[in-house]
Amino acid sequence: MPRFEPLSAEALDTIERGADRLAAEVGVQFDHPRALELFRAAGQTVDGSLVRFDHGFLRAQAAFAPETFHLRARNPEHNLLIGGDHMVFCPAQGPPFVRIGDERRDGTMADAEALLKLTQLSGSLDTPGRNVLEPNDVPLDVRHLVRALAAIRLTDLVWSGEPSSTGAADDCLRMAEIVFGGREKIEREPVLFVNCNVNSPLRFDVRQLEGLLSYAAAGQAVIVTPFLLMGAMAPVSVAAALVQQTVEALAGVALVQLVRPGTRSVLGSFLSSTDMQSGSPAFGGPESALGLCASGQIARRIGLPWRSGGGTLTASPAVDYQAGYEALNTLQAAFLAGANVCWQSAGWLEGGLVTSFEKFVADCELIDLLCRQFRGIEVDEESLALDAHVEVGPGGHFFGAAHTLERFRDCFWRPTVATTENFDRWTRGGSLDHAARATRRWQELLATYEAPPLDAAVEEELVEFVERRAAELGDVVSVR
Amino acid sequence: MPRFEPLSAEALDTIERGADRLAAEVGVQFDHPRALELFRAAGQTVDGSLVRFDHGFLRAQAAFAPETFHLRARNPEHNLLIGGDHMVFCPAQGPPFVRIGDERRDGTMADAEALLKLTQLSGSLDTPGRNVLEPNDVPLDVRHLVRALAAIRLTDLVWSGEPSSTGAADDCLRMAEIVFGGREKIEREPVLFVNCNVNSPLRFDVRQLEGLLSYAAAGQAVIVTPFLLMGAMAPVSVAAALVQQTVEALAGVALVQLVRPGTRSVLGSFLSSTDMQSGSPAFGGPESALGLCASGQIARRIGLPWRSGGGTLTASPAVDYQAGYEALNTLQAAFLAGANVCWQSAGWLEGGLVTSFEKFVADCELIDLLCRQFRGIEVDEESLALDAHVEVGPGGHFFGAAHTLERFRDCFWRPTVATTENFDRWTRGGSLDHAARATRRWQELLATYEAPPLDAAVEEELVEFVERRAAELGDVVSVR
Repeated sequence: MPRFEPLSAEALDTIERGADRLAAEVGVQFDHPRALELFRAAGQTVDGSLVRFDHGFLRAQAAFAPETFHLRARNPEHNLLIGGDHMVFCPAQGPPFVRIGDERRDGTMADAEALLKLTQLSGSLDTPGRNVLEPNDVPLDVRHLVRALAAIRLTDLVWSGEPSSTGAADDCLRMAEIVFGGREKIEREPVLFVNCNVNSPLRFDVRQLEGLLSYAAAGQAVIVTPFLLMGAMAPVSVAAALVQQTVEALAGVALVQLVRPGTRSVLGSFLSSTDMQSGSPAFGGPESALGLCASGQIARRIGLPWRSGGGTLTASPAVDYQAGYEALNTLQAAFLAGANVCWQSAGWLEGGLVTSFEKFVADCELIDLLCRQFRGIEVDEESLALDAHVEVGPGGHFFGAAHTLERFRDCFWRPTVATTENFDRWTRGGSLDHAARATRRWQELLATYEAPPLDAAVEEELVEFVERRAAELGDVVSVR
Repeated sequence: MPRFEPLSAEALDTIERGADRLAAEVGVQFDHPRALELFRAAGQTVDGSLVRFDHGFLRAQAAFAPETFHLRARNPEHNLLIGGDHMVFCPAQGPPFVRIGDERRDGTMADAEALLKLTQLSGSLDTPGRNVLEPNDVPLDVRHLVRALAAIRLTDLVWSGEPSSTGAADDCLRMAEIVFGGREKIEREPVLFVNCNVNSPLRFDVRQLEGLLSYAAAGQAVIVTPFLLMGAMAPVSVAAALVQQTVEALAGVALVQLVRPGTRSVLGSFLSSTDMQSGSPAFGGPESALGLCASGQIARRIGLPWRSGGGTLTASPAVDYQAGYEALNTLQAAFLAGANVCWQSAGWLEGGLVTSFEKFVADCELIDLLCRQFRGIEVDEESLALDAHVEVGPGGHFFGAAHTLERFRDCFWRPTVATTENFDRWTRGGSLDHAARATRRWQELLATYEAPPLDAAVEEELVEFVERRAAELGDVVSVR
């Protein structure tokens, strides 16, 4: 299917020149001595913690990264191919609150586990990522251990490592080594996705840099994501935000390549606007959709896989009409833009403060719908169905035509939550709106869950590792 | 902005060849002697009421119609330009039921009048069309009179004529003559939009043909709309539906051109799928979105303006997440496809059985959003905002930057119903979901309504005409 490309070649040139100037004249701040050392050694201008880049340097570094790559899952059927025409989907990441039906409260580990099970069951999602919901009942310093263990046990998908400190990164890498048979194996065939956020504008803080440096050294796949709400962390124009996003993402990728040339890298994007009356973030609007489509053009010009911020973003506090249209407008833009990695694609509510169980399954339906939509239209002699017209004739109907009977089971996409019931039937069924039907859907789905097989010795080693590391960090965790 | 074109040139050729074969081998049924006479005189094969077309005949007839044209409104500021890159929007047409908040009941003339006022106020809609809601409290045979009068009085926009009989068409034309100063004037500069539906598959019934022949003779703009629910009125493949739609729309347009060459004509499209388990129509799915995008390609190849069926279609009975995503997926497809006329773009609910006041204003927000989205991205030196970066620096924020302060009022699209409120504020405000906020929105909007000026003598002549014609039809109407 074609991509939707709003920028002319001339506009792309202007943005590229703007990025060169921003990188050279303003520069990017790196709060880590190792990063500064690497850039200095590569001949760039380091002034305190600020690095200014020669024209062309960032793109030249990015050229070391592969255009496409694989990530190994513990179930080989769930290995991922990143780049090209491929898209992978990941649910919401990081919300502290959960919404289940009308209840909104702090997320717990039990909630997070249920969401991991739904991820495994969905058929629409390719990776649980790192933290589909913050487990507020788990001490902060051991969460990375507990949730990595849960992701490994409850799914057989590629998961994500914790980027927020060297210690957390080392723990996550160690757990990956236990699952896949040692450091050498995961360096040769990477297994972890790691998302490092930029402290936009133009700054990488020490925590994200510790993660970035650790995972790059271990050869795992690193996504570098500028986090841009125009009006707050970026100027109030899409063009300026694209320039800034390009510089920030390329600066991170360049650092990854200096650590270990050839490391799998993904250009990140999280681009939305601010409600300038309230200062609140806004999602699903025209500026973010346009920004996504343009981001795809820029990433293809650079020649790297890229991540779209959304996903199924919405500012709505409820699973309502607004949530539906904002989610679709963001996710459809990711498809039109040819995004390779779609983070935040299920469950995101209330500007990312909440993971909603209902929206989780509702959003999975959108992923399914658009996957079908972007498969395109089959056109050949048989699909023209002239015989069916001869059979039915003017004024007839096609319900019983041979062409229909051969194809009716899978000729059209079928939703899992949306309804086509007529009013009487819908009313007799309790007048359930989409959100209420989504409750039924996730409950039914969850009831079918079976844990994917995991080697008992591997699981025992993981559990021992988590218990030992938790004890070293001063906590007791019960993960048996 | 570019269009999204899913069909290859080869696929377009295949569809064109298929259309030629369907028109020649199966043909189209016309239930009106005048239509058959015109086709016979033009050398086509007439067999009973079935017409079979020579290869190329339909496209040759279509070539008489202009690629773009104007329609005159009684307020010249609301004249319409149809074709090219222009899009015009019209609300739901024909639902018998109304939904206001939680109440669903038969539509009344008072409801229809409120919806006409909202159309005039919306700023998003260009024409009320013909019947935004069926007024069940008005006798059937005089509805065309009463609602044309209401459209003329309550809006100053282009409205649509009734196609369902010669008598109704003559009445509507007479009312247009009263408003615009006589037959000669409206023939020279057309003022009425008329939508004629095909009784798909491949049949035009006598009622729609009476309308088509009358309006074509009077030189008004005629939209010919195949009504295709794949599985019911069309085969279960998008390619076959596109072939059928092409033949049906072109056959109607060819007839229009035989009546009066050069008459403004629009290729119609209303293409969706059927839920093959229940037989219910489905809306907003991938097949209809793809079908719309392909319809645009076919219409551009033929060189005529075209109408997209949606609009903001949905099968949902409630203004919920499903309604939001199905509406957006249909409307966005119309934008991606470059539709010139978007019928059914506000208020449509429950598969078109209901006009919802809440969805009316919610859908207007989607039109606004996409109009902004499809304006594209401005890229120039100023929009790159390098100065703002120099001012703010790494790690800062842009709320107070000079670039922001100059632009914050209109730099981003602002919704009318969607919220960005945080949870506390939203909860304090009553936890209103999108549908509940939409109630507030249409009530506030309606309270600001003022009737557009209408010449008193013209209004008196219209009222006298409607009263007299109603009396002739055996009814008494109170329209004073």
